[in-house]
Amino acid sequence: MKKPQVGIVMGSDSDNPIMEETCKVLERFGVNYEKLVSSAHRSPERTRKYVAGAKKRGIKVLVAGAGGAAHLAGVMAAESILPVIGIPIPSTPLQGLDSLLSTAQMPGGVPVAAMAVGSAGARNAGILAVQILALGDASLTAKLLKYKKDQAREVELKSRKLNAANGRNPKN
Amino acid sequence: MKKPQVGIVMGSDSDNPIMEETCKVLERFGVNYEKLVSSAHRSPERTRKYVAGAKKRGIKVLVAGAGGAAHLAGVMAAESILPVIGIPIPSTPLQGLDSLLSTAQMPGGVPVAAMAVGSAGARNAGILAVQILALGDASLTAKLLKYKKDQAREVELKSRKLNAANGRNPKN
Amino acid sequence: MKKPQVGIVMGSDSDNPIMEETCKVLERFGVNYEKLVSSAHRSPERTRKYVAGAKKRGIKVLVAGAGGAAHLAGVMAAESILPVIGIPIPSTPLQGLDSLLSTAQMPGGVPVAAMAVGSAGARNAGILAVQILALGDASLTAKLLKYKKDQAREVELKSRKLNAANGRNPKN
Amino acid sequence: MKKPQVGIVMGSDSDNPIMEETCKVLERFGVNYEKLVSSAHRSPERTRKYVAGAKKRGIKVLVAGAGGAAHLAGVMAAESILPVIGIPIPSTPLQGLDSLLSTAQMPGGVPVAAMAVGSAGARNAGILAVQILALGDASLTAKLLKYKKDQAREVELKSRKLNAANGRNPKN
Amino acid sequence: MKKPQVGIVMGSDSDNPIMEETCKVLERFGVNYEKLVSSAHRSPERTRKYVAGAKKRGIKVLVAGAGGAAHLAGVMAAESILPVIGIPIPSTPLQGLDSLLSTAQMPGGVPVAAMAVGSAGARNAGILAVQILALGDASLTAKLLKYKKDQAREVELKSRKLNAANGRNPKN
Amino acid sequence: MKKPQVGIVMGSDSDNPIMEETCKVLERFGVNYEKLVSSAHRSPERTRKYVAGAKKRGIKVLVAGAGGAAHLAGVMAAESILPVIGIPIPSTPLQGLDSLLSTAQMPGGVPVAAMAVGSAGARNAGILAVQILALGDASLTAKLLKYKKDQAREVELKSRKLNAANGRNPKN
Amino acid sequence: MKKPQVGIVMGSDSDNPIMEETCKVLERFGVNYEKLVSSAHRSPERTRKYVAGAKKRGIKVLVAGAGGAAHLAGVMAAESILPVIGIPIPSTPLQGLDSLLSTAQMPGGVPVAAMAVGSAGARNAGILAVQILALGDASLTAKLLKYKKDQAREVELKSRKLNAANGRNPKN
Amino acid sequence: MKKPQVGIVMGSDSDNPIMEETCKVLERFGVNYEKLVSSAHRSPERTRKYVAGAKKRGIKVLVAGAGGAAHLAGVMAAESILPVIGIPIPSTPLQGLDSLLSTAQMPGGVPVAAMAVGSAGARNAGILAVQILALGDASLTAKLLKYKKDQAREVELKSRKLNAANGRNPKN
Repeated sequence: MKKPQVGIVMGSDSDNPIMEETCKVLERFGVNYEKLVSSAHRSPERTRKYVAGAKKRGIKVLVAGAGGAAHLAGVMAAESILPVIGIPIPSTPLQGLDSLLSTAQMPGGVPVAAMAVGSAGARNAGILAVQILALGDASLTAKLLKYKKDQAREVELKSRKLNAANGRNPKN
Repeated sequence: MKKPQVGIVMGSDSDNPIMEETCKVLERFGVNYEKLVSSAHRSPERTRKYVAGAKKRGIKVLVAGAGGAAHLAGVMAAESILPVIGIPIPSTPLQGLDSLLSTAQMPGGVPVAAMAVGSAGARNAGILAVQILALGDASLTAKLLKYKKDQAREVELKSRKLNAANGRNPKN
Repeated sequence: MKKPQVGIVMGSDSDNPIMEETCKVLERFGVNYEKLVSSAHRSPERTRKYVAGAKKRGIKVLVAGAGGAAHLAGVMAAESILPVIGIPIPSTPLQGLDSLLSTAQMPGGVPVAAMAVGSAGARNAGILAVQILALGDASLTAKLLKYKKDQAREVELKSRKLNAANGRNPKN
Repeated sequence: MKKPQVGIVMGSDSDNPIMEETCKVLERFGVNYEKLVSSAHRSPERTRKYVAGAKKRGIKVLVAGAGGAAHLAGVMAAESILPVIGIPIPSTPLQGLDSLLSTAQMPGGVPVAAMAVGSAGARNAGILAVQILALGDASLTAKLLKYKKDQAREVELKSRKLNAANGRNPKN
Repeated sequence: MKKPQVGIVMGSDSDNPIMEETCKVLERFGVNYEKLVSSAHRSPERTRKYVAGAKKRGIKVLVAGAGGAAHLAGVMAAESILPVIGIPIPSTPLQGLDSLLSTAQMPGGVPVAAMAVGSAGARNAGILAVQILALGDASLTAKLLKYKKDQAREVELKSRKLNAANGRNPKN
Repeated sequence: MKKPQVGIVMGSDSDNPIMEETCKVLERFGVNYEKLVSSAHRSPERTRKYVAGAKKRGIKVLVAGAGGAAHLAGVMAAESILPVIGIPIPSTPLQGLDSLLSTAQMPGGVPVAAMAVGSAGARNAGILAVQILALGDASLTAKLLKYKKDQAREVELKSRKLNAANGRNPKN
Repeated sequence: MKKPQVGIVMGSDSDNPIMEETCKVLERFGVNYEKLVSSAHRSPERTRKYVAGAKKRGIKVLVAGAGGAAHLAGVMAAESILPVIGIPIPSTPLQGLDSLLSTAQMPGGVPVAAMAVGSAGARNAGILAVQILALGDASLTAKLLKYKKDQAREVELKSRKLNAANGRNPKN
Repeated sequence: MKKPQVGIVMGSDSDNPIMEETCKVLERFGVNYEKLVSSAHRSPERTRKYVAGAKKRGIKVLVAGAGGAAHLAGVMAAESILPVIGIPIPSTPLQGLDSLLSTAQMPGGVPVAAMAVGSAGARNAGILAVQILALGDASLTAKLLKYKKDQAREVELKSRKLNAANGRNPKN
């Protein structure tokens, strides 16, 4: 079996339903990944060790999902030169504004690629990881081009279905 | 000379003018401290080493000032069982809302004592540190009681001065 | 029975489910506490009297939970030189942004240690209180060190359990 | 000289330039007032004593201006059954969102009449105080009616002046 | 039957459950009121006519509840010299931040007394109206003093009940 | 059958329940429309082609509903000189603040007429479209005048019904 | 001279520098307009009278600029069936978030076309007005098409100029 | 000369001072880039053509900087399968909250890697681009490792310098 190329870390196992969106995308593109729970705050050493060893074991892109004062992506970015993608999880009463700002507002010198809050962001983390890997893998490029086309066609089909169901012009 | 009891860390040397407010308070109370620049993101190992050694060297309270996705206090709290006080620095165009949320919204298990954004918060970090140390130091308790009285009297004096200057009742 | 060392005040009895998180932590660490309902606005004299007598009766740390224009922690801090920890309760339609700002944005001179909004903050208030008490109690220090280790291990176990349940590498 | 009917309290003497807007309005309407600096946090006893004695000394409306975690109006409302008007002062990097929420989001049972952030709010505090006093003073009612008319006419005059200056229809 | 002294207007009949909190308070204090639905935007003339006639018919305080771009209180204040109390209703997906800002941020010259968002604000609108009327009605003053005491006692009783139920010190 | 004059585009078929509010209004006014699903991001070419052909086919007003980083209205405005009305859909955990800012904060040169977040905005998009079309269609003007009157009367009826149900003055 | 087709109202003469952006656009397109200062709150009757007479005098589009609790556009929309465009002016310490929400969050039934906060919004109000008028005026359509092309070309020229100045590829 | 690997687009030439931060980083790492001004809204065709041709001409990473309703990055991501990095520019009175949400809150299917608001974000866009390119370029990997070390050392030096200047322990 191929070695994982993407390392997905989430701050709490309660983030898993959202993080599964990232997994689904990677599976669809046939990209191997590994996933673990590790907190920037509650298990900092585990997080650090994982990140420290990631590059050597073949990981090329790191993905981190965390809520509240979401430091996980930033902490991973501090320890690695791999691209780090951060997904703000809406797990507090502030509904993700806190996690978005904690993920995106990184200081100069240590980038995190912030995604949207929640499931849409988790899905996009998978796609961005594939886009990055595709720069060195022509088969992924082809799959991405097809994905983009399929996505556009799917919108069109849904539109026609909706109009048909509503008794409106089924060509739109 | 007495060993420092408070360890002050700031994420960038540009945070120093604000962090000096913490120093001034500690000096007023005669509490020794040490201060250094160390970033959660740009110098994570330095930050970790400092925190790891702090307790043994006699540090009892940690103070962290950082802006933007302000992870410094959280990263220090992850590595220590000492009380950690966090000061959100308003150093980005979002003016401190980002640093406040990144400092305050810590997950359960790893507390950070968040102060107000900016100078008022830095000053209060010093006072809170003294309040914590005063639990084991009766002379600090006496100083705090005096400080509280002085502070109230100062308000009164300013009020009278203002009224006098405005030609209003100088007793108010 | 030992005297309480932590005084927990909540602005309304409806805040109790959240404030129980503070109690649970203190009980786990064997720290005695007392808890009462008292509002900064509806029972100001009761609040003041409680705070005025707290230090003499052996209270070392005050914890306040309140929602909306959450003044309780600030009012208590105004009347005491004990460390005051504030928990913003998300009890209004603004979901805690109001209580967070009302708790954290204290003016220079009167600190409140603001926690995260809601349950995570309440849990952390308990831990911070223990961290403060541990400065004068070696047995609490030992318990905190163990708590930190247990917490890290728990993350690891949850991670493996999750991966096992998902048919992925159970070592992660 | 007539006794003051309005008691104006500000949390800091640095709030005075804004609070002068309240004074100007009251002077225009010939309403006597007294003004003092007293902080909810730094001089709580002074604040309380002032409020406790206000009603007996003839004060009918209380006005409070404060910034940040602006508790002053709420603390005064807790101690009095007089109407309390609160002016959020934009004195922190969060520019008044904190003081507005801390002033307006009072719990049920203890109202504060929140004004706009800053100078406009201070001016309106004066007018609202006059409106309240006018319920028992016909001469103030007459002055308010005139003030409202003058205000409307002033808008009209400014409009014509602006159009004239711009070479546009001077009737608009 | 006594003439109503308070005029309550809500922008939509869907605001009624919240506005009933104002009514309950007024009924408790024996203050007569009238209540109507009238929108600043959908029935501007009705709103204006109501406000124009209010003073003559004996109304002394106006209360307005509205959501979203909550203009109702401001529109009423533009047409009257009576004190106008505004209650921001959380009726849009923005959950009341919009209605609070639209109610509180009035320009200089036309005050609105903004309450908290939602039910707490509606309850406080009633109390503030009573506080204003009490300036000219000694019996209301007595009732307000009793209300304040009852409120404080109620907090105390709830506290003891809670502690008793939890097996903790029933004196707190 | 008359050609459609309004073109309604939504970014996702899940926005349809909200967008139906626009349709209902247009149907009430007898204005023909066409509706389709097309995303600014997932089907950019389809969106562009639709907009490019709209004017020639007789469309006079474009309506776009989208959530999150709601670019749809802006993208359509970039490609057309027809008036574009944008409806921010509250489809992310940030509840529409993101879609409102993404819709309203257009740069100088390319206007979008932003409506309120959600259903109220969708309804108003329909009315604004009719108001624009009415400038060239006297029958629509007449209908709008009647709509405005009906709307005011409906408020009045609801008010009386509410008061009657509550045993209060049924004339209000 | 041609009669004005656009009526521009601003709440305060201090809004004029921003509102001049609307004028400049209309002048560029040769569209006649009239401009006046009239406040929703300080001169409600003047505002109402202006709006009531606007349609008869040939006005086809209304533009309103206001800050804070920006009710002006909404009040005008309540009184007219003409399209109303609202420009949120950033005139308070909250920097336009208040005026944006007060302008955009209109209830169902009474639309306001909200523009961006400040100058960009004022400029776009002019363009949107022209787009609406162009539906019945082919010469404006032609001008809008040219404006759109010029705008695109201007971007290209600025890009080349910038690259040339920076010594980079002057074709980009 | 080597072909550019990074394509930098900014929505307005006024964004250039911030975008220069991206350029500086790329130059430091010896990565070729091209930079142009092109707006999502004012020059959509130019933007599209640029993006459509980018991949063929060897561009591997796209960077977009835009303010307000910052659609540029999203529009580019819609047209390409290359990784797109978005920098929110704080160019409106809302100071970048609008551009951050417009950049980050992308719908599922079309990722944008959002950076921090302003200069820090622009600098990080450059570093992230290098991190992505380094996956296929060992010399960039080496440079990144050195950059990370230099960055940490620079923090340490600044700290010592600051302490020395303040007469404090120059080892910290």
